Amino acid sequence: MASAAGEEGTVRFGIIGCAMIARKLSRAIGWPQRGRRRRRQPLPGELRGGPLRPARGRRLPSPPHQPPPALGVAAAASGKHLLLEKPAALCAADLDEILAACDAAGVQFMDSTMWMHHPRTAAMRELLSDPVRFGKLRTVNSIFTFVAGPSFLENDIRVKPELDGLGALGDVGWYCIRGILWAVDYELPESVVALRHPVTNAAGVILSCGASLVWKDGQTATFHCSFLANMTIELTAVGSAGTLHAGDFVIPAEERSAAFSFSSCAEFSDLHTSWGPLPSRHVVSSGLPQEAQMVAEFSRLPEKKWPDITRKTQLVVDAVKASIERGFEPVVVGS
Amino acid sequence: MASAAGEEGTVRFGIIGCAMIARKLSRAIGWPQRGRRRRRQPLPGELRGGPLRPARGRRLPSPPHQPPPALGVAAAASGKHLLLEKPAALCAADLDEILAACDAAGVQFMDSTMWMHHPRTAAMRELLSDPVRFGKLRTVNSIFTFVAGPSFLENDIRVKPELDGLGALGDVGWYCIRGILWAVDYELPESVVALRHPVTNAAGVILSCGASLVWKDGQTATFHCSFLANMTIELTAVGSAGTLHAGDFVIPAEERSAAFSFSSCAEFSDLHTSWGPLPSRHVVSSGLPQEAQMVAEFSRLPEKKWPDITRKTQLVVDAVKASIERGFEPVVVGS
Repeated sequence: MASAAGEEGTVRFGIIGCAMIARKLSRAIGWPQRGRRRRRQPLPGELRGGPLRPARGRRLPSPPHQPPPALGVAAAASGKHLLLEKPAALCAADLDEILAACDAAGVQFMDSTMWMHHPRTAAMRELLSDPVRFGKLRTVNSIFTFVAGPSFLENDIRVKPELDGLGALGDVGWYCIRGILWAVDYELPESVVALRHPVTNAAGVILSCGASLVWKDGQTATFHCSFLANMTIELTAVGSAGTLHAGDFVIPAEERSAAFSFSSCAEFSDLHTSWGPLPSRHVVSSGLPQEAQMVAEFSRLPEKKWPDITRKTQLVVDAVKASIERGFEPVVVGS
Repeated sequence: MASAAGEEGTVRFGIIGCAMIARKLSRAIGWPQRGRRRRRQPLPGELRGGPLRPARGRRLPSPPHQPPPALGVAAAASGKHLLLEKPAALCAADLDEILAACDAAGVQFMDSTMWMHHPRTAAMRELLSDPVRFGKLRTVNSIFTFVAGPSFLENDIRVKPELDGLGALGDVGWYCIRGILWAVDYELPESVVALRHPVTNAAGVILSCGASLVWKDGQTATFHCSFLANMTIELTAVGSAGTLHAGDFVIPAEERSAAFSFSSCAEFSDLHTSWGPLPSRHVVSSGLPQEAQMVAEFSRLPEKKWPDITRKTQLVVDAVKASIERGFEPVVVGS
């Protein structure tokens, strides 16, 4: 999806795509913004953005057989900032073409991972960064599954090798991996091992898979992503002193507020017959839905961190896929 | 720990061991039982048990350098039913010596995995077995960690290679593995892969590790166990139609009741801006603490399933350890 800044204070969006997510984004783009937000300085050569006003998105059905990076490259080359739906590309090499085009044109790149922009995410980050209450991260587990119906499993672009060929890994798995990388503050894992027996459709597209990630200092992470299991959207991060758990981290169960639980320095009672303190429940209200928060954030460009975060996510996606293809061998990330 | 049945209606216990857990069990043995429970028929040659009466445990400090299975074998050979603390043995071969001795003497064997006997566990089992509300199990994640203090990390038998040499794997990891096997109704996984970079002490004893387990039909499980992270006791089981989550499955945070959450057939709203139904919270009261439930269950012998459940748990423990020792290769369980 491409964005272009017009007159001062207004950001115009063009949408390439016709999936449900384009309708969701159109709604977010049109969402009335309360209060003017500080506008950052534009990058050299960048078209200037600003706080959002109610606007209309224009929808174009994207050409179905366009080579994946070509649309992004073309949009960037024509001076449009890019807000790209996940998976950002089918592999890091494709993504790099898009990122290079953005660099060359001086436009912003950001992937459309909406939960990153919910205020809950910032509240969770604050706790994860607390050396006393959370300490050093030890392990993360993430699960994102939902039940895809017969029509999805037959027709959706996410089950077609020539379209969104990464399947569940590029869809729900993208969020699991992003959640893990977010928790470790974007330090790439050393290596990734996919779990044996991923489920694929007849065309070889992944419908369900999992993997483990390890860091040299003993940090670990695991995830499971699937189109074949009940809706589950979990992130659990355990540190040397604290534990964070969110049961709906990608899409809050309710639109206007989201919860997580956090426990710190929990201990057994005498004789280990109970333990505490119990996790506390934190509820974070969101004046705007997270996708409207994302649109607002994208309109306050520039922000250099986003391309790097996308690229790291893509590198881990690539490593999981490579591990599956290489008989579940460990794969060095970025190799 | 050994048990012997005396006169009708009374079960006498002798305790071999001096750890905190022996005090916890002594308290459970002495717990007044409310209401007489049905007594099952004894196995051939078995000493007869019955409902518990208030009783006193007699504590003996176990000889520190006794070869591991010898005590269990000796207790069984002298006609005592065995209620054995986890890990039941350092490897399946050692366990098999104990089980063979129990078989030969016609006495019951059960490991002391207390959470199995909490009524919450039965309530969760009922949901997991529901073909409509839960469906087919897809994946399980389990985490059991706590922060061991400096004295534990220096002196506890669980960090000494010549004593409880399985370290965190045999202690908290035992519960993770049991939780996983319980969720899959004790079907052994095909293979196990340990995660790289487990943390060990100078003597090589595991302080923190994790592994992934796979079944041929695509079921997967992952776990993380550690002495080095904040108290976290999680079990998440995701099925084709339901999701079960318990945040304190091994030791309920409160002694007299325990909760879990369950969701079924959850779906996104239009535009995926929310989802539901939300998981429901289930609270199960326990008239007796789970360890007293366990003692009561043990006193209603015989029950043939327990040795098999213990052995399967031990086989997975062995496979995780073997995977670590073989450079994180996949290990066929039971090989």
